[in-house]
Amino acid sequence: MLLTETIVDSFIDTRRETEIRCKPLQTEDYVVQPIEDVSPPKWHLGHTTWFFEEFLLQKFSPNYVPYKADFSFVFNSYYESVGKRVIRANRGNLSRPSVSEIYEYRAYVTDKIIHLFSGQTTEEMNKLLEIGIHHEKQHQELLLTDIKFILGNNPLFPVYSKDYEENPIVNPTPEWVRISEGLYPIGHRGNDFCFDNELGSHKVFLTSFQISKVLVTNSEFIEFIEDGGYTSFNYWHAEGWDWVSKQKIDAPLYWYIIDGKWHHYTLKGFKEVAPNHPITHLSYYEAFAYAQWKGFRLPTEFEWEVAQNQFKWGQRWEWTESAYLPYPNYKKAEGALGEYNGKFMVNQKVLRGGSIATPKEHTRPTYRNFFHPTLRWQYTGLRLAK
Amino acid sequence: MLLTETIVDSFIDTRRETEIRCKPLQTEDYVVQPIEDVSPPKWHLGHTTWFFEEFLLQKFSPNYVPYKADFSFVFNSYYESVGKRVIRANRGNLSRPSVSEIYEYRAYVTDKIIHLFSGQTTEEMNKLLEIGIHHEKQHQELLLTDIKFILGNNPLFPVYSKDYEENPIVNPTPEWVRISEGLYPIGHRGNDFCFDNELGSHKVFLTSFQISKVLVTNSEFIEFIEDGGYTSFNYWHAEGWDWVSKQKIDAPLYWYIIDGKWHHYTLKGFKEVAPNHPITHLSYYEAFAYAQWKGFRLPTEFEWEVAQNQFKWGQRWEWTESAYLPYPNYKKAEGALGEYNGKFMVNQKVLRGGSIATPKEHTRPTYRNFFHPTLRWQYTGLRLAK
Amino acid sequence: MLLTETIVDSFIDTRRETEIRCKPLQTEDYVVQPIEDVSPPKWHLGHTTWFFEEFLLQKFSPNYVPYKADFSFVFNSYYESVGKRVIRANRGNLSRPSVSEIYEYRAYVTDKIIHLFSGQTTEEMNKLLEIGIHHEKQHQELLLTDIKFILGNNPLFPVYSKDYEENPIVNPTPEWVRISEGLYPIGHRGNDFCFDNELGSHKVFLTSFQISKVLVTNSEFIEFIEDGGYTSFNYWHAEGWDWVSKQKIDAPLYWYIIDGKWHHYTLKGFKEVAPNHPITHLSYYEAFAYAQWKGFRLPTEFEWEVAQNQFKWGQRWEWTESAYLPYPNYKKAEGALGEYNGKFMVNQKVLRGGSIATPKEHTRPTYRNFFHPTLRWQYTGLRLAK
Amino acid sequence: MLLTETIVDSFIDTRRETEIRCKPLQTEDYVVQPIEDVSPPKWHLGHTTWFFEEFLLQKFSPNYVPYKADFSFVFNSYYESVGKRVIRANRGNLSRPSVSEIYEYRAYVTDKIIHLFSGQTTEEMNKLLEIGIHHEKQHQELLLTDIKFILGNNPLFPVYSKDYEENPIVNPTPEWVRISEGLYPIGHRGNDFCFDNELGSHKVFLTSFQISKVLVTNSEFIEFIEDGGYTSFNYWHAEGWDWVSKQKIDAPLYWYIIDGKWHHYTLKGFKEVAPNHPITHLSYYEAFAYAQWKGFRLPTEFEWEVAQNQFKWGQRWEWTESAYLPYPNYKKAEGALGEYNGKFMVNQKVLRGGSIATPKEHTRPTYRNFFHPTLRWQYTGLRLAK
Repeated sequence: MLLTETIVDSFIDTRRETEIRCKPLQTEDYVVQPIEDVSPPKWHLGHTTWFFEEFLLQKFSPNYVPYKADFSFVFNSYYESVGKRVIRANRGNLSRPSVSEIYEYRAYVTDKIIHLFSGQTTEEMNKLLEIGIHHEKQHQELLLTDIKFILGNNPLFPVYSKDYEENPIVNPTPEWVRISEGLYPIGHRGNDFCFDNELGSHKVFLTSFQISKVLVTNSEFIEFIEDGGYTSFNYWHAEGWDWVSKQKIDAPLYWYIIDGKWHHYTLKGFKEVAPNHPITHLSYYEAFAYAQWKGFRLPTEFEWEVAQNQFKWGQRWEWTESAYLPYPNYKKAEGALGEYNGKFMVNQKVLRGGSIATPKEHTRPTYRNFFHPTLRWQYTGLRLAK
Repeated sequence: MLLTETIVDSFIDTRRETEIRCKPLQTEDYVVQPIEDVSPPKWHLGHTTWFFEEFLLQKFSPNYVPYKADFSFVFNSYYESVGKRVIRANRGNLSRPSVSEIYEYRAYVTDKIIHLFSGQTTEEMNKLLEIGIHHEKQHQELLLTDIKFILGNNPLFPVYSKDYEENPIVNPTPEWVRISEGLYPIGHRGNDFCFDNELGSHKVFLTSFQISKVLVTNSEFIEFIEDGGYTSFNYWHAEGWDWVSKQKIDAPLYWYIIDGKWHHYTLKGFKEVAPNHPITHLSYYEAFAYAQWKGFRLPTEFEWEVAQNQFKWGQRWEWTESAYLPYPNYKKAEGALGEYNGKFMVNQKVLRGGSIATPKEHTRPTYRNFFHPTLRWQYTGLRLAK
Repeated sequence: MLLTETIVDSFIDTRRETEIRCKPLQTEDYVVQPIEDVSPPKWHLGHTTWFFEEFLLQKFSPNYVPYKADFSFVFNSYYESVGKRVIRANRGNLSRPSVSEIYEYRAYVTDKIIHLFSGQTTEEMNKLLEIGIHHEKQHQELLLTDIKFILGNNPLFPVYSKDYEENPIVNPTPEWVRISEGLYPIGHRGNDFCFDNELGSHKVFLTSFQISKVLVTNSEFIEFIEDGGYTSFNYWHAEGWDWVSKQKIDAPLYWYIIDGKWHHYTLKGFKEVAPNHPITHLSYYEAFAYAQWKGFRLPTEFEWEVAQNQFKWGQRWEWTESAYLPYPNYKKAEGALGEYNGKFMVNQKVLRGGSIATPKEHTRPTYRNFFHPTLRWQYTGLRLAK
Repeated sequence: MLLTETIVDSFIDTRRETEIRCKPLQTEDYVVQPIEDVSPPKWHLGHTTWFFEEFLLQKFSPNYVPYKADFSFVFNSYYESVGKRVIRANRGNLSRPSVSEIYEYRAYVTDKIIHLFSGQTTEEMNKLLEIGIHHEKQHQELLLTDIKFILGNNPLFPVYSKDYEENPIVNPTPEWVRISEGLYPIGHRGNDFCFDNELGSHKVFLTSFQISKVLVTNSEFIEFIEDGGYTSFNYWHAEGWDWVSKQKIDAPLYWYIIDGKWHHYTLKGFKEVAPNHPITHLSYYEAFAYAQWKGFRLPTEFEWEVAQNQFKWGQRWEWTESAYLPYPNYKKAEGALGEYNGKFMVNQKVLRGGSIATPKEHTRPTYRNFFHPTLRWQYTGLRLAK
């Protein structure tokens, strides 16, 4: 557990970073929700604020007056235990509260939290504040990927900002890491912050395996496309094939052919695809099909965790073959916070790593990200194993 | 045909009135599209402007430089002949062009039109300008009803403006107008502007009938509700009953019971329902069911047109029993403008009258409005016949 | 009103004819429901029987014991007033009651009706029996078109029977009938049986018009196809165009190109399309688009009725431009029978004429058939007007 | 590998057993498909036959004449590599081929197989025949559960047969089996038949755990219902809760309250629910929610496999917490048979055990059954772990 002072500093930094990420937005960009998975930026701003109001100010700040009573209804997301929520698909239909009002709401709550923590604090309060900070950091990542989706699906394809370099590294020479059979420890140890789904440190027995030191690149994936990868059902899961066929998928998200060359939308605008950069914006189904086509497979999350100190990671979330399931002795937290992770442990795949959208200090070797196998709007790529 | 000067004056007034209607909006309100039938206000602003650019400036203004090339793609609505349009359901996903950019676009096009018409004009140009003005007036009405829907479906129920009185009249004492059997003229005569669907003046033979001098009121409709009108299938069309059952309809749009009394959302905010004001925001199915329950029927559009000079109208669109069909000798206009009316002549019901949202000079005894029988977000009520 | 004896004879003939139509069926063919509009043949057999049980035996036959209590639940169709019905889309999921049991049910009810009418009858009873007969005759037509759909959508395309000649006539030389402006009587007169929607004999005023003596032929329609009729939106209603695009319609129902020639499925099996036979299995949208392309229009139902004694009809249902609406002074029958027609008077188009599936004596100049504008599994064609 | 003779005996027995299971069916019952997951019995009869024709007769029987060329189109299921299949949801729309024709097809193919194997055989042929037998045995189980669904969703609720006792055992006294931490072998060993998903025998490290000797009973589950289990979101996965809410689930499949007591449909007809019999027809979501409510959890498939020799099983498929994933070193078979298992390894949960519908010799300690978490029409229950 950190000192209160350190946590409050982190709180202030986090609140500021969220707003920095939104700076290049025009007011209108804050409002829309082109698909259900993507939330309007203003909702992220409000929802992360509501979290502090609901779980800290309402509980520990005597005589706290909520900024506005009905915001709790508008900015609650999936916490069924707290109150009737606005249905997720409906977020993009709400023009009010306005963006400026939400910024006022943020300032109000930030201020009240700082004031609350300048007094006597308890371990429970510190812990809740820490969770709230990490909750907001998770939304910082979503903010950036949601903004990319909002602008990348507008026929005008506006440039967002020159500050976000989506392809920071050129791949080094491919090489395999070998790990021998044995019992290995898995899960979070130590006192640093982690989510409940990383706890329950335990051992797994792994058969010997090899895992690539590098991520699959754009040029490698273009080979797959050109070899008919998207039209050969035998590389695909049955449900993956249905998805490809019904949605008419034939390239990664944001990819278009212009004058015979592959281009993609980035936060800096339209660019030609760079051959030796890691591929991104793939669904699990595409990552799996690529590995099948190549004659390899995806690593499990356990293989990844065991081998991760032997390769570079953190530029792309990496799909693993593992389903998102509880670790042995998993315990979900009491109360509304218990809804945080455990309720999603079905029909999702684990991703490991991190991306250029991931806030600093917000990924680690044991961090378990998870998404449905069709989703592609995160920065998602793959690493091969055999 | 009016003088060019008069038309240009009318053009300027119309452009101004559109913007006046939007004045109380916050930027965010311009963007959202809660249901497919409702368009974002900024789309209305752009689309009405695009119409002048496409059908006048591009054709008659030599060397005209469009404000932005891709606006034609964004602001085209249903004119399939002009270019691939943004799918209607997708309008609320477009944060760009921004509101301020659209206002600049409006100013640019308004200016260019004024300049074009300060030179030599032709009858064709005058006619197209007149159509564009009336097109924009139609969108003025939609603007107000769409704004009401956007705000009225927000859980914060914001007040829009104190300027719009939705219930301008108290009903006079009920009375029936008697019309005797005979041949009557129907359709537009004279040289004033009208839409192509009003043309083809012709005669219809009407059996004798009676039509009410007054519209059905809120208190009368509440009797219907309290008598189980919404739960008795025998008052309803089969498709109306399916609609009521699946959509769980049990009151007019915007109606809620608060503390045991009926309230409704208006542009001035939440109000208690006034008993002797005309009922509004009904679907055709509800209007029909009410008439069945009362033992009467809806008038046909012909009965309405023949009798209309014997009662007051214009506060509410009135559902008629008539399907929206071409008059004898109906001719649709050549080219893209020909898509304007004729292509909708199936599965829709005619409404006659006008509403508080209808621009002045934009309704007349022969005006034929039309909507699908389930729609309720317009100011729609009913008058009985027998 | 006919003599009881004559009605009972007609009843017996009708019951027999229904079963004759089903004779070539295999047991399995009685069960399936490939689309919601098509009912399983065994449902038709049971439903027409249930009608007599429900509206005659239950009411007028003292101590009548229903064949089986729960059949009323299974075989009720849309008569909401009588009891909870099996949802229409679900009929093809019911393997029981078995076909043989339904034939027993038919025999049982037929017998009880004959017995009931061998005693004292009332005018009400006679009238209800007559309606039941006509109800069953309507289902005879549906039986044949539903059977065609069931077999015509099976990849094995089985021959149904050599007895049904779908193309009985070769078109005579085209010629126009001219009708001059004037007041004409419309609707059923006299004491013969008719449905309530034909009643309310009244006058309509018609502008002068011409109507073709012949139906549009296959070869004429092939010209429309080859001229790109299905891919030119300007011939279509907006909703027709959506339908064509979403359903990927590019030819009449049952049409396929084999070895470069148009073939179609008929009750006699696959046949090459005969050029000078009337086109059939068109939706209203296709009929309308054809007329637009040809530069003509569809007649209204009133024009058709006024002109019908000057041309041959009865081989094909003919789409008209008229919406299905009540005639002036339309009164729907009391009780459950009142649900028969009036509740469908919205969103449907009137067809006039008759087809090879129509039972003898079951069409007449005033008969108003009606279907939704997308439906094509009936024998539906068109006649031009101008 | 078994002797050819033994395999052929097993083939003959299997073919016979399939038909025995269908004996109580009426012809109509063979045809319908009330939901997509349930196939018409006649399809099962044809599809299992087609498998032998496609993978053995077509390949190894020189001059083999297929019974009918287009049956391959009709009876192919999901093997995309073999040819265009009839879409799964469409199976219940096919009245032809008739039931008797399919029985002839069965006899023809059975005969040809026996003849083929009376000559020289190869190991490959034996192996394919064995797979075909096990494939048909899997369909035997589906046949019974599909028949139950077809009859159990008919409003007449017919009795199928007195021969199938769905509740063969009364639960013994509850007791926990304790397994201590350690490395345990998982997967199939030896030369007996198994599916490819059981291969790749390997070790897993298990934390110590306890698993119940008995299945959860009806009376225990009724406690869950009565305690509001179906209306408390906190016991459910987020997707489980959506499913319960949208589908309005409030009891196991086939359960109805009659006169205040729980009854359920069985193959012997309607019965009162017996309190101390194992609960069945639960989805994974319900099984998980029950375990949450009880304060325990579901076992993993590995825990189950390690502990299974210490309790009785085989009366009910048991949901486990494990996702259906490939074992380390999993290799999918070459060619069309490779589509058999691997392509389903996403979004499904593993079930272990067996049921009264499982053919004898067709379950074993390493057998991995799998279904989507919403499915309930199999005989599915649960065993608790902690």
